[in-house]
Amino acid sequence: MASDEVKLLGAWPSPYVLRARIALNIKRVNYEFLEEKFGTKSDLLLKSNPVHKKIPVLIHGENPIAESLIIVQYIDEFWASGPQILPSDPYNRAVARFWAAYIDDKWYPNARAILMADEGEAKKAALQGAIEGLNLLEDAFLKCSNGGKFFGGDKIGYLDIALGGFLGWIRVIERMGDVTLIGNCPNLLKWGENFAGDDSVKDVLPETEKLFEVAKFIVAKTKASAKH
Amino acid sequence: MASDEVKLLGAWPSPYVLRARIALNIKRVNYEFLEEKFGTKSDLLLKSNPVHKKIPVLIHGENPIAESLIIVQYIDEFWASGPQILPSDPYNRAVARFWAAYIDDKWYPNARAILMADEGEAKKAALQGAIEGLNLLEDAFLKCSNGGKFFGGDKIGYLDIALGGFLGWIRVIERMGDVTLIGNCPNLLKWGENFAGDDSVKDVLPETEKLFEVAKFIVAKTKASAKH
Repeated sequence: MASDEVKLLGAWPSPYVLRARIALNIKRVNYEFLEEKFGTKSDLLLKSNPVHKKIPVLIHGENPIAESLIIVQYIDEFWASGPQILPSDPYNRAVARFWAAYIDDKWYPNARAILMADEGEAKKAALQGAIEGLNLLEDAFLKCSNGGKFFGGDKIGYLDIALGGFLGWIRVIERMGDVTLIGNCPNLLKWGENFAGDDSVKDVLPETEKLFEVAKFIVAKTKASAKH
Repeated sequence: MASDEVKLLGAWPSPYVLRARIALNIKRVNYEFLEEKFGTKSDLLLKSNPVHKKIPVLIHGENPIAESLIIVQYIDEFWASGPQILPSDPYNRAVARFWAAYIDDKWYPNARAILMADEGEAKKAALQGAIEGLNLLEDAFLKCSNGGKFFGGDKIGYLDIALGGFLGWIRVIERMGDVTLIGNCPNLLKWGENFAGDDSVKDVLPETEKLFEVAKFIVAKTKASAKH
């Protein structure tokens, strides 16, 4: 039925788009992936997310849904009969939501600044912030995973998706910035391997090598435009 | 039973704390309100929210929950048998979450900057951003409310709480900044009156006059410390 069609507006290097793809894979939802070209915004994107004009946007029938973590929650709630993504216990849900928001609001801006900041104090502060953040997430992993391989326990859940979207980018930042991030956190390091190998992830996780090329391009472009 | 006790760490002028109080009122949950003194952080706050060290924190039994919108969702999910706060339809939930995130991430920083920015371009841009944001929310109200008095339809829901937390502050900003914000939006203006008079709100909504005094103090303090 046409009104049940699922489309995802995205781009393969985006950590936020990756979140939506993993959630759709977990629920075994068939969808059409509409790739936005870098540096341009399609009419469909502008129409579907007029407020932020950003990917990802999930279009389910006539309904556009924006913001990656909101998309993941929508997927979990609409396809409720599939494997559960958010924990079932309200407190565990709150904890997962807390750390997911932390990753987006506090942790990633630091991680990104490692690449974007010029050498010096700003870069040092960003690196320290990103390392401290991963240490907090390493602690959170021990509490949330309950002895399992994932934040979600035996299977990938909301917080796995939230952090895992960035996994390729963490590896790229470590290499480009010549820094150790996840390498300092033995549990997260192991988690990353398990995450990358999971059935819902392995076919959509970008190759580090390809991501590395994109990152070089974006960093050069961002730094050049900051100088003008 | 001691382990079921509900405490809320907060302060009466905080729009974020107000959200939690309204949600608790809707569910008719008894709680102890532990008021943090302005400019200080209690040991209980530092222990309960070591990452952000910010109010509100809901402490339910032994479990601390931070971040106002996460607290509201927790309250809705834990006390599930009370009046529903989030919409039941997954798409309507996603829409409510989208606008709530918009209010926190995009709209409020502009509204706040109307008071904090010095006269000139920055203040003008903030005012324009805040007005445009309220126009978007006015449109969202017409779509979400479905002819009802609230974003949630006939009764106060998630998005009412998200925006309504700021209602007193909107009135203060209009007065202190000598600007018209919600006054430009006839539906939101009416919504604000209905919201302020609701049983779950009227006893916890700060008086504009008292809030005005707090705002003068905070603005003076912030501007003074920015100069040093």
